[in-house]
Amino acid sequence: MIKVGIIGASGYTGGELLRFLKNHPDTELVAATSRQYDGQPIYKVHPNLRDLEMKFENLKPDEMDADLVFTATPHGASMKIVPELLENDMRVVDLSGDYRFENIKTYEKWYGFEHTNPLKAVYGLPEINRELIKTADLVANPGCYPTGAILACLPIVSEKIVDTIVVDSKSGVSGAGVTPSEATHYPNCSDSVSPYAVITHRHGPEIQEKLSKIENCRVSFTPHLVPVIRGIMTTVHSFIIEDVSSEYVHEIYKEFYNGEPFVRVLDPGEIPRLSSVRGSNYCHIGCFDIDENGRLVVASAIDNLVKGASGQAVHNMNLMFGIPETQSIDQVGLHP
Amino acid sequence: MIKVGIIGASGYTGGELLRFLKNHPDTELVAATSRQYDGQPIYKVHPNLRDLEMKFENLKPDEMDADLVFTATPHGASMKIVPELLENDMRVVDLSGDYRFENIKTYEKWYGFEHTNPLKAVYGLPEINRELIKTADLVANPGCYPTGAILACLPIVSEKIVDTIVVDSKSGVSGAGVTPSEATHYPNCSDSVSPYAVITHRHGPEIQEKLSKIENCRVSFTPHLVPVIRGIMTTVHSFIIEDVSSEYVHEIYKEFYNGEPFVRVLDPGEIPRLSSVRGSNYCHIGCFDIDENGRLVVASAIDNLVKGASGQAVHNMNLMFGIPETQSIDQVGLHP
Amino acid sequence: MIKVGIIGASGYTGGELLRFLKNHPDTELVAATSRQYDGQPIYKVHPNLRDLEMKFENLKPDEMDADLVFTATPHGASMKIVPELLENDMRVVDLSGDYRFENIKTYEKWYGFEHTNPLKAVYGLPEINRELIKTADLVANPGCYPTGAILACLPIVSEKIVDTIVVDSKSGVSGAGVTPSEATHYPNCSDSVSPYAVITHRHGPEIQEKLSKIENCRVSFTPHLVPVIRGIMTTVHSFIIEDVSSEYVHEIYKEFYNGEPFVRVLDPGEIPRLSSVRGSNYCHIGCFDIDENGRLVVASAIDNLVKGASGQAVHNMNLMFGIPETQSIDQVGLHP
Amino acid sequence: MIKVGIIGASGYTGGELLRFLKNHPDTELVAATSRQYDGQPIYKVHPNLRDLEMKFENLKPDEMDADLVFTATPHGASMKIVPELLENDMRVVDLSGDYRFENIKTYEKWYGFEHTNPLKAVYGLPEINRELIKTADLVANPGCYPTGAILACLPIVSEKIVDTIVVDSKSGVSGAGVTPSEATHYPNCSDSVSPYAVITHRHGPEIQEKLSKIENCRVSFTPHLVPVIRGIMTTVHSFIIEDVSSEYVHEIYKEFYNGEPFVRVLDPGEIPRLSSVRGSNYCHIGCFDIDENGRLVVASAIDNLVKGASGQAVHNMNLMFGIPETQSIDQVGLHP
Repeated sequence: MIKVGIIGASGYTGGELLRFLKNHPDTELVAATSRQYDGQPIYKVHPNLRDLEMKFENLKPDEMDADLVFTATPHGASMKIVPELLENDMRVVDLSGDYRFENIKTYEKWYGFEHTNPLKAVYGLPEINRELIKTADLVANPGCYPTGAILACLPIVSEKIVDTIVVDSKSGVSGAGVTPSEATHYPNCSDSVSPYAVITHRHGPEIQEKLSKIENCRVSFTPHLVPVIRGIMTTVHSFIIEDVSSEYVHEIYKEFYNGEPFVRVLDPGEIPRLSSVRGSNYCHIGCFDIDENGRLVVASAIDNLVKGASGQAVHNMNLMFGIPETQSIDQVGLHP
Repeated sequence: MIKVGIIGASGYTGGELLRFLKNHPDTELVAATSRQYDGQPIYKVHPNLRDLEMKFENLKPDEMDADLVFTATPHGASMKIVPELLENDMRVVDLSGDYRFENIKTYEKWYGFEHTNPLKAVYGLPEINRELIKTADLVANPGCYPTGAILACLPIVSEKIVDTIVVDSKSGVSGAGVTPSEATHYPNCSDSVSPYAVITHRHGPEIQEKLSKIENCRVSFTPHLVPVIRGIMTTVHSFIIEDVSSEYVHEIYKEFYNGEPFVRVLDPGEIPRLSSVRGSNYCHIGCFDIDENGRLVVASAIDNLVKGASGQAVHNMNLMFGIPETQSIDQVGLHP
Repeated sequence: MIKVGIIGASGYTGGELLRFLKNHPDTELVAATSRQYDGQPIYKVHPNLRDLEMKFENLKPDEMDADLVFTATPHGASMKIVPELLENDMRVVDLSGDYRFENIKTYEKWYGFEHTNPLKAVYGLPEINRELIKTADLVANPGCYPTGAILACLPIVSEKIVDTIVVDSKSGVSGAGVTPSEATHYPNCSDSVSPYAVITHRHGPEIQEKLSKIENCRVSFTPHLVPVIRGIMTTVHSFIIEDVSSEYVHEIYKEFYNGEPFVRVLDPGEIPRLSSVRGSNYCHIGCFDIDENGRLVVASAIDNLVKGASGQAVHNMNLMFGIPETQSIDQVGLHP
Repeated sequence: MIKVGIIGASGYTGGELLRFLKNHPDTELVAATSRQYDGQPIYKVHPNLRDLEMKFENLKPDEMDADLVFTATPHGASMKIVPELLENDMRVVDLSGDYRFENIKTYEKWYGFEHTNPLKAVYGLPEINRELIKTADLVANPGCYPTGAILACLPIVSEKIVDTIVVDSKSGVSGAGVTPSEATHYPNCSDSVSPYAVITHRHGPEIQEKLSKIENCRVSFTPHLVPVIRGIMTTVHSFIIEDVSSEYVHEIYKEFYNGEPFVRVLDPGEIPRLSSVRGSNYCHIGCFDIDENGRLVVASAIDNLVKGASGQAVHNMNLMFGIPETQSIDQVGLHP
């Protein structure tokens, strides 16, 4: 049994980690930390986990005794915790942005503060880094938008079919986290669609760095908040630089993701649906249409809290410990 | 392996049966019928079941070769199919209203047509009929509203604490089924709450018959449509006829449901939440408050498609075949 | 021109007052106060009022120079402001709960603090107090739930047709005000229905006091939060104490509200809809069904921010100053 | 008094026309036609118009006696009605797509059938054709998406700041009309975002034709359905071909729309909100950000049924008859 701890377990990603670990046959949950809810039963915060008898604890990193720790901590906080965990021989999947960038300067520019503890980490998108993840001690779990965007773009970037890419993403409100704010106040975000951080969202440079590593391209990113609890629909508009057909593009995607346990390339004409992946670790990709201006449209659907966060984190853990990849995260989406 | 068939598999309850059976270790799915989608892959209708390679078939009852058949067919249709299945030595869990009533006259009055094939059936609410279900050949799966209402009322009716009961239920729109209608048209039911079938809903007499069998009581029922995909919140207002306290009522519920695998009695002060049970087979019950007029409020939350339909149907199947009760239906709710 | 001021203009009710006053031909808006937004253009807070050039001011009551002041201030705050306004010869429509109760003891019990400045006020429900409102200096604008509930109950209480009443109300989230909270966080209240303050909501005793003044009755009240921006659907379950028919009850309502400018009694079989009254000052009342247990169901729909707050406040102002009752608040609902 | 008729008054745009005309001081409504609801009171279909005593009639075009007729009829139907109305000396505002295109070939290609009655019409976007509209006998009311998209693009296309434009639009479900369908079934479109008609929507060529007439440009368009009742958020991604700043672009918009009664250019940093324009004829435009790739983002918000349909149609009527432009359509948005 692999001993697993969660630091920062009271947020939505913490709740989802607990949901997946609850029945994981190869792991034992040793601790779920929360400063705010120290001593309280977990189900008081995650009411769906009614039967979980564990309580939140306020542990320091060096009090954690685990083989693997998920750090579901805010940006800036992870960099203060992760090094100590690694020094104490724990492997880490970090869900913050702190270890996602190879270029620390990019990180510091977009996150607005100095990175005090840069470390070598593997970017935890199994579809590009499966082998590296298996042996990594520190995996940087991808951002939610980058997961949906990179998976939608990978095949056409790899194949040099496009170079100019506009990513127009629409995210459910759980992506804003568990803390109430004006933007997440029901009367403000119901019956509404809002672009935000229009050219300044931190996930833009993350997408750019990861795709550029594959092939030269320039990515422009704008996120929107939509009245949805879970899910990100990513609409990728790109301009083809080779004369290819929609059918050809579809074929490229089929081949590229052949054998991937969590990516499904839809049939021609099928539109990805958030309900198909709701609560699940799957990513559905569809569209592949090319218009008269040579614009190619590809769309992907993920659950931001699962494939976009905690499900992918468990996937990474499974890979790191030689557990079957889909263990405990293979449930299908909740449709309708 | 138990051979299982589903008649009427293209609706929401069909989709949920497939979701639960997909990974059930003790069953083998032999057929999923649909006239409308005959020959089409199941995932074209249930897009979350992307990996299910089975196709819908247009089988007649006598072409079905199964140990157990779920009939997810409309009221009035089941009575034409079920007898033939039973004659062919198949056991049946019927999800329609056709076999829920002991009193055929009540059925005929509220459903508005003659019952042409009355049969002895067990009402499939495990919390009251667990032992009878185990040996039944025909189980009538309860209605969605009755499931939430009866579970909320059982302890206080059994204990003769109340006799006059008003059930004010609020249901998500999936309860109206898969067929579009004016009532389910998004611009009509979003940002809206609608009482409907105010004193004429068929689930009223179903609740009445089942509770009356326990103890004398009179139940008044009004359902509402709320802008929710899944879930029924049932608010039970009843008037106490004994001088009891809120704490005492809470204790009665705790004892009554002690050991029940799918019913959870919340702590005092906890309010049931639909997200706690979304996609799951659990029923959460809370409130237990008594006001100055002697009105007791109890509220229950279920997922109408799961505990209110397909999850409960699989629960019944598990009981009928000596499978562990919670097999394949023990996943927790999707919160948020 | 009547000079009008608004104290506490940055909340939802403040915004709605401004919307109605903006084009009111008989009034001149002299001040809209807000401590938090002092000096900021109003449209920064109420983005729909883009053309309003006024700014919020942080005025003290004695700096206000108006014929009428709307105090859209929290419970407990109004009692500190209203007396001074009255002393300075301004008439007041108070939107808080501070002056709604005739029985100060009831107020203090349910609001949990001492009333330091009790004053004679008229309860501003025009349908019962039209004449008194006309000459009042202080009008206590009714609560949102009480408005919907009292209008639904008035005819049957007046006519002594019922005495035991259960009010099961479903409110949109704007009723919780402009300040974000856990309860109003989108992922918590979307796809959800929640009973709250199950027997302890302050609007319960308000309904009780006003109806008891008409005739003897006992009212039990439970509110629910529903995923709706605006609107309250009130379902009234009562038990008839006279042998009357549904048609007779419908007639009573038609007669009772004949000539009322803002109450519409629907046809038999028509269900009230929130969209019919969205953004408007109308109250629609329907149902009038009686079941086999003698339970009568009546349902009413209002917009909680309009008939349940600011529209009614302007209605009161119109009455107080001899302006045509429907001036500037006669727009119809926004359907769909 | 101008005599006004509506052909096809039972849909959403018909309902909105009726809402605006109800209190219009310069018009008299002479007929509202509907085949399906012939003889029924209008309020049975548009429940917010409770006090409108008029009934639907099943009139033929030549039975209409009006100065102006709104044809709120489907594509393909208008072309059979409009010529006859014009011949009978009625002026027409057509809300269908039939008369929007200058190039009939484009119309026929995208609408998929032959245009049997081409006529000279003015494209009814007052912001580009105000003077032509005033004297037109036939005004083709713009599509909902084109209204939002063209207004967002006009200044930068006119100024030749961009030439490659991607329009990613998000529309509320009322845009799909009053008829229920799978796409508008609540469980399908709630908690969801769906791209559709990804490169084949008819509003694409409409946007292209109107903008091309201003200056050379190529427009790629993809619409999405979002869980919103009313409103279109249009996100325009374009690539600047001149070295301009965000501030400069903002200035261009301010100047371009200076004096326009229904277009508001937001302050830098302000994001357009659907609630700001809900139920109103305003269009709010904001963003104006330029990223490192030279991509400029502009976003516009409109109510698809008002500025995107019926409000704009009344605006056109006002212009055609010399009525003050904003008459009866100057109400502000319903926020929240």
